[in-house]
Amino acid sequence: MAAAREPAPDRSLFDDAPEGRARLKLVVAYDGSDFHGFASQPDVRTVEGVLVKALEKLLRHEVALSCAGRTDAGVHAWGQVVSLEADPGVDPWRLRDSLNAILGPEVVVRECEMVEAGFDARHSAASRAYRYTVVNRPEPDPFLARYAWWVPQPLALAPMRMAADPFIGEHDFSAFCRRVDGKGRTRTVTSSRWIDLGDGVLRYDVTATAFCWQMVRSMVGTLVDVGRGLLRPGDITAILRSGDRQAAGQVAPPHGLCLWEVAY
Amino acid sequence: MAAAREPAPDRSLFDDAPEGRARLKLVVAYDGSDFHGFASQPDVRTVEGVLVKALEKLLRHEVALSCAGRTDAGVHAWGQVVSLEADPGVDPWRLRDSLNAILGPEVVVRECEMVEAGFDARHSAASRAYRYTVVNRPEPDPFLARYAWWVPQPLALAPMRMAADPFIGEHDFSAFCRRVDGKGRTRTVTSSRWIDLGDGVLRYDVTATAFCWQMVRSMVGTLVDVGRGLLRPGDITAILRSGDRQAAGQVAPPHGLCLWEVAY
Repeated sequence: MAAAREPAPDRSLFDDAPEGRARLKLVVAYDGSDFHGFASQPDVRTVEGVLVKALEKLLRHEVALSCAGRTDAGVHAWGQVVSLEADPGVDPWRLRDSLNAILGPEVVVRECEMVEAGFDARHSAASRAYRYTVVNRPEPDPFLARYAWWVPQPLALAPMRMAADPFIGEHDFSAFCRRVDGKGRTRTVTSSRWIDLGDGVLRYDVTATAFCWQMVRSMVGTLVDVGRGLLRPGDITAILRSGDRQAAGQVAPPHGLCLWEVAY
Repeated sequence: MAAAREPAPDRSLFDDAPEGRARLKLVVAYDGSDFHGFASQPDVRTVEGVLVKALEKLLRHEVALSCAGRTDAGVHAWGQVVSLEADPGVDPWRLRDSLNAILGPEVVVRECEMVEAGFDARHSAASRAYRYTVVNRPEPDPFLARYAWWVPQPLALAPMRMAADPFIGEHDFSAFCRRVDGKGRTRTVTSSRWIDLGDGVLRYDVTATAFCWQMVRSMVGTLVDVGRGLLRPGDITAILRSGDRQAAGQVAPPHGLCLWEVAY
């Protein structure tokens, strides 16, 4: 179904018969600190950019990727999924190791496998899980600084937990999204909860069929405002209903966010 | 007892009477990736260098530090301890926050308190605890790359645990130290063990009264050689007895090492 998005691969490399085409699924982890997000853009360094360049070098044909989550600049991934069309003769294990030799440890292909022809990392995805990490201590943490949002003001976890509940279900998330004209903003959240990891480290785990632009960061920023006492847990439902982005709280910074897992 | 190592502070800032002098104890965490080690050296960036510069700016007198562990280039710390002489009028909490505003999140003062005049971070220390982290997976990890040694070859944990035992007790660690002429190399190790954190993450925890130069990294490198089957657990005692640095295994890289805690 993603055929229209893929350019024609170099046919000389493999058989032209339908059974001669193969699709690869890659599970990719990356430290997003030094990337301008996942999606290719002219003149800036992106995860897709370095991945496509390495894949084209190894596969020796043009590559177009489909990806499960177009993460923003500074956002990390543990379980980003991409798919591409490739020569059926490719050994996925050797391809994985060759990609990691070129791109690791900043970008790491954790899994690489052949999948059925109809698989598309974006359109076949049933749900996405994100994790957002907050360090809530008076002083910053040198080891979590790249991967967690440091909030020095004391946070009350109980109201943050209560405030996380109303997100579950099907809602119009307009109040928690950066606008993209002409696109619906109704999404179904299946899980939304805070985990206390101890030593002031709090993690927000959220799963949905799909997310709008900056939705998780907007939800986390608003939940942290609840934890600081600037909003009450009961305000979340009203903000959701308002559809008004000005009603929601701050947008949490990108470096605390990680695309954790994609389910198919 | 460290009086000879400290220059005279600016006397105009506080009373000259003995009760007018104060000692500060700081517990400092740092990401050692971009430092040439702890100890000040000319023309390179060191943790001591940036700490002394920030302290002198805030305290407005010359500062000389005593530290519990002179960590090498690339080595991290969670619980490095330093002590210095300061004006008794200094507010330790405000000093901590001001230092963190200048140095954080790369270098973070976790605790700052007034201590008794005789306290010296180095000479008063009763023991030091180090942690060394290994990632044992076929592929690297983007989030642990700065803080753990990636070992792709499969490691057998049971023999590594057996091999860690003979280090406990008082031994001449010449075989596991980089030589410094004229210095004794007998040390007492009180704890030496591997923790399996799951997902291929292994941590070696070791505590001793004190350590010689590169001792933990040499021990870890040798233990990993045991895990790879290049040495047997029974070889450790023979290597210790030999006093021969050539008999020990490789020296593990610095970025997996962290000065965890210092006890007084």
